[in-house]
Amino acid sequence: MRNYPKPLQKLINEFAKLPGVGNKSAQRLAFHVISLTENQVEQFAKTLVDAKNQMKYCSVCGNLTDTDPCSICSDGSRRDDLICVVESPKDVVAMERIREFSGRYHVLHGTISPMDGIGPEEINLHSLIERLMNSEVKELIVATNPTIEGEATAMYISKLIKPSGIKVTRIAHGIPVGGDLEYTDEITLLKAIEGRKEI
Amino acid sequence: MRNYPKPLQKLINEFAKLPGVGNKSAQRLAFHVISLTENQVEQFAKTLVDAKNQMKYCSVCGNLTDTDPCSICSDGSRRDDLICVVESPKDVVAMERIREFSGRYHVLHGTISPMDGIGPEEINLHSLIERLMNSEVKELIVATNPTIEGEATAMYISKLIKPSGIKVTRIAHGIPVGGDLEYTDEITLLKAIEGRKEI
Repeated sequence: MRNYPKPLQKLINEFAKLPGVGNKSAQRLAFHVISLTENQVEQFAKTLVDAKNQMKYCSVCGNLTDTDPCSICSDGSRRDDLICVVESPKDVVAMERIREFSGRYHVLHGTISPMDGIGPEEINLHSLIERLMNSEVKELIVATNPTIEGEATAMYISKLIKPSGIKVTRIAHGIPVGGDLEYTDEITLLKAIEGRKEI
Repeated sequence: MRNYPKPLQKLINEFAKLPGVGNKSAQRLAFHVISLTENQVEQFAKTLVDAKNQMKYCSVCGNLTDTDPCSICSDGSRRDDLICVVESPKDVVAMERIREFSGRYHVLHGTISPMDGIGPEEINLHSLIERLMNSEVKELIVATNPTIEGEATAMYISKLIKPSGIKVTRIAHGIPVGGDLEYTDEITLLKAIEGRKEI
């Protein structure tokens, strides 16, 4: 036995394909699975397939959901005049965690990135335009990440939407709360200065 | 949506149960699974269940295997007079990697650890005694880890087997190749001095 028996090796290979899981971790995970009961393993396998089969994208906002439209789009208590544009479903969860935002979302599933061959057509932008037509939306908060691609996408959306009269805003960038000026990179510091407010 | 939709949250919870996987990693893994094709996810799920169902312990040596007896125990080209005792199936793979050992193995699945309530009865020791009876084994190499429990188990096995006339040896402990005296802990250094050889 130079290697593990085939069923175990196959499982190690499957784990090693996951992001951030190296060969050593994959071995540990595979041995852990072997040590579980049959029921537990079947439960795990079922959860994997169920998650893949039951999760879809909301036809309105593009968020990951198990109902269509998603729970946010179908929530009558939320404001219809405010949409927050984010890059990924994870960002929706992050925004929801602050328990302050009561508008709707629109998930782009990426950013415009000409270097990677991703143009405006490749992200979930077309449905945003459709959604804004004949809607009562008054403000669009663009909350893409402060990366080059995120900024470019924000600029693109701003130029595209502004002529329609809808207010387009960008989330603030600056020093994170608890951060330290001394250890803040130049660009963040520049953004912090640019975004200064009278107190 | 304060949390993720249920099928996704369930998958995150399953991943978070794995050793060394925190909540953030579990989220990343779950999102990765969602991004795979249905076929890939089903393949992953099948591999999990298959590994659990097809892997068993060899009735001779106790190693993890998909055949019984395992490929090592049924390999006619290996020496029958030499058995290496290890703690876990992973140790067998580690030993096999050096491509030098041509004897058989015996996997204990643990070590004697009175503190955790694990006595000689709780590890795969009884079958070792049975295996040694009326066998042609001449030497037993005890390759348990150099921990307190590993050492205690090695001592126990030695005292148990020696009266039968079988030679019991212990693998050497010392400074690892490429290691540095300066950074070696006292106990390892002590073992290295104790185990010194004439050159």
